[in-house]
Amino acid sequence: MSKAVKIGNISIGGGNAVAIQSMLNVKTSLVDKVVLKTERLVQAGCDIIRVSVKDEEDAAAISAIKKRIKIPLVADIHFNYKYALAAIDGGADKIRINPGNIGSEKNVEEVARALKSSGTAVRVGSNSGSVEKSLLEKYGKNEISLAESALNNVSILEKFGVDNIVISAKASSVPLTVATYRYLSKKTDYPLHVGVTEAGTIKMGLVKSCVGIGSLLLDGIGDTIRVSLTADPIEEIYAAKNILRSVGLDKNYVEVISCPTCGRTEYDSVGLAEKVEKLTAGIKKPLKIAVMGCVVNGPGEARDCDLGVAGGSGFCVFFKNGEIYKKVPFDNVDEEFIKELNKIVG
Amino acid sequence: MSKAVKIGNISIGGGNAVAIQSMLNVKTSLVDKVVLKTERLVQAGCDIIRVSVKDEEDAAAISAIKKRIKIPLVADIHFNYKYALAAIDGGADKIRINPGNIGSEKNVEEVARALKSSGTAVRVGSNSGSVEKSLLEKYGKNEISLAESALNNVSILEKFGVDNIVISAKASSVPLTVATYRYLSKKTDYPLHVGVTEAGTIKMGLVKSCVGIGSLLLDGIGDTIRVSLTADPIEEIYAAKNILRSVGLDKNYVEVISCPTCGRTEYDSVGLAEKVEKLTAGIKKPLKIAVMGCVVNGPGEARDCDLGVAGGSGFCVFFKNGEIYKKVPFDNVDEEFIKELNKIVG
Repeated sequence: MSKAVKIGNISIGGGNAVAIQSMLNVKTSLVDKVVLKTERLVQAGCDIIRVSVKDEEDAAAISAIKKRIKIPLVADIHFNYKYALAAIDGGADKIRINPGNIGSEKNVEEVARALKSSGTAVRVGSNSGSVEKSLLEKYGKNEISLAESALNNVSILEKFGVDNIVISAKASSVPLTVATYRYLSKKTDYPLHVGVTEAGTIKMGLVKSCVGIGSLLLDGIGDTIRVSLTADPIEEIYAAKNILRSVGLDKNYVEVISCPTCGRTEYDSVGLAEKVEKLTAGIKKPLKIAVMGCVVNGPGEARDCDLGVAGGSGFCVFFKNGEIYKKVPFDNVDEEFIKELNKIVG
Repeated sequence: MSKAVKIGNISIGGGNAVAIQSMLNVKTSLVDKVVLKTERLVQAGCDIIRVSVKDEEDAAAISAIKKRIKIPLVADIHFNYKYALAAIDGGADKIRINPGNIGSEKNVEEVARALKSSGTAVRVGSNSGSVEKSLLEKYGKNEISLAESALNNVSILEKFGVDNIVISAKASSVPLTVATYRYLSKKTDYPLHVGVTEAGTIKMGLVKSCVGIGSLLLDGIGDTIRVSLTADPIEEIYAAKNILRSVGLDKNYVEVISCPTCGRTEYDSVGLAEKVEKLTAGIKKPLKIAVMGCVVNGPGEARDCDLGVAGGSGFCVFFKNGEIYKKVPFDNVDEEFIKELNKIVG
C-alpha cells in the first residue's frame, strides 16, 4: 500500500479514498472565475483542483483563491522556481513542479525548504515527451525510462529532505501509461497520481482514460486520478466518478443495470433505462435497479437488484431481489415503475 | 495463446485480430430490417453479428439472412434445442447456447452432432445471474463459480466431441468480469468472448465496458469483444473500435492527441481538436495529430506526432515530429492547420 500524503484538508494514499481531481482552463489571475468554476466542479464531485501558474499575477492570485474555496488547491508550475515559492507562500496545498527543470541546485534547495517549512505537498513526475536523453539511451523509450524519469525527480527532492511527495508518469499511450504505473507501484510507496495525458476529446479521451485509469485501479494502483479531456472540466469529474463506480471504489450511488436489448424486447426498455438513470443520478444510496428487455434473462440476471423490470409479451414484470411481484401492461410500465422506484429511493 | 476457432469466413483466437461483434435488437424474422441494420453495423466496423432466435419464425429466417449478409452470423438460443438445430441447418456460423439448459442428454447429443457435421462454432458461457447452485455452494459467489459454470458447459459439449468452442462468462460487475476472464484464461485455451453484461446506458455502460474489456485486452485476454450498451448497436461498434485503438490493437487510424487545456491556453484548442477529429474520423492511416493548448508542453509532449499545433500568445506554432516549422496568427489557425492536415492525410 502507498503511504499517506496530506494535501490540505484531505489525505491521499495509505488506504484513503481515491481523490478525484481536475484542472481549470481559465487564467488563474481571474480569481472570480476560478472560484466560480471550482464551486461548480466541487458540486459535481471534484476533490482537488489544480490551476496553472503562468506568470506573477497567477502566482499572486493563489492566496485570494485559497481563501474562497474549500477543496485543496494545487499550483502547476513550469520552469520558474519563484512562482513555486510564491504559490507555497500564498497557501497552495500542493505544487506540481519538476525539480529537474527549475535550474540550479540552489533553486531546488529553496523550494524544498519552503515545502518543508509549510508542509505543502508536491507532485513530481514525468511525461513521455520529456524523458531525459540519458534515460532514453539507457532503457529505451518505454515504461522503465518514463518511470525512472519520475523517480529521478523524486530523489532530487529527497536529497533535501522533502517526503510529502506524489508521483505521476503520464503518456498519451494507454499501454505505456499502465505499464509505467505498474512499474512505479513496485518501486515506490509514494502515492500515485494516475491519468492518461493528452487523451483527446470527450469521445476518444473518455475511452482512453477509462481503460488506462480503470485497469490500474482494478489492480489497486492509483491514489488520486485525473481524467484529462479536451472538453469542459466538469466532464472530467463525471468520467472520474463513473470510473470509480465501475471498479467498485464508490458504491454509494444508484447503479442501473440494463441490457442492450435484442430481438426479444417488445417494449421501450432503452427509454425507460435512460429515465431511471436520470431520475436517480444524484441519489447517494447503494441501490441496484435493473431494466431488462425480456424475461429470458431478466429476473435471473438481476437477482441481486433492489428493484427491476423485465419485458414479456404485452406486459412487464416487476421484481425485487429476483422475485416477480407485479405484472404491468406495457402502456403503464414507465409510470408504474417510477412509482415503485420512488418508494425505494425516496 | 488461445487456439483458433473458425466462425464462417473469419477466425478468432490463435493470434487473429480481435473481432468486434454486436447483436441486433429487431425481431429476427423481419429479414429485411435485419439485413439493413447489419449492413449499417458492418459499415461502422462490425465483424460478427448475432441475432436472437425466439421462435420458429426466427429460426426459419436464419438461412434467408445468411444469404444476404457478408459477415458471420450467430444465432442466440435459450432453452429450445430445436431452434439450435434449425439455426445450424439454416447456415448460422455460430450458435450461442448453453447445453446445460436445453434439457436431456439426448437433446445435447443431437445439437453436438449437428455442430460437428456442419462445422458450426458454438459459444457457451455463464452469467452471474445463472450460476448453478452447486457451484455457488462450493466456491461462493465469485469469479471461480462463474468461470467454472462456463467450463461446465464446455465439458458437456466436449463429451460429445465438439471442440470449436468459444467461451464467455459475464457479469454486470466489472471487477467480477475481469477476475473471471483472468481465471478462465489460465484454465482454458478456447477463445474468449469478452464483455461486461447489462453494462447500462451509453453513459455508464461505456465506462464499464471500457474498463472491463480494456483492462483484459491490455493483458492479452480476449479474442472477440462485445460492448453491451442499452443504446443503438452502432454505438457498441464505435465503442469497441475505440477500445481496440486505445489498447494499441488497431493502429490503422488517425490518432488525435489533445491536451485538456489549462489557464495557459489562449486559443480555442478544444474546438480545433474536435474539428480535426471529425475530419479524420474515417481515414485508415496510422497517423498521430497533436492539438495542444500551449507551447510549454506542446511540441515536446507531441514529439512523435506527424503533425501538431500548439498555442502561444496571439499565434500558434505548427510542428512536425517535434520540430516547429511555422507560426500562424490565432485568426487563421483553424484554416491553416486543416490545410496542413489535408496535405498528410489526403
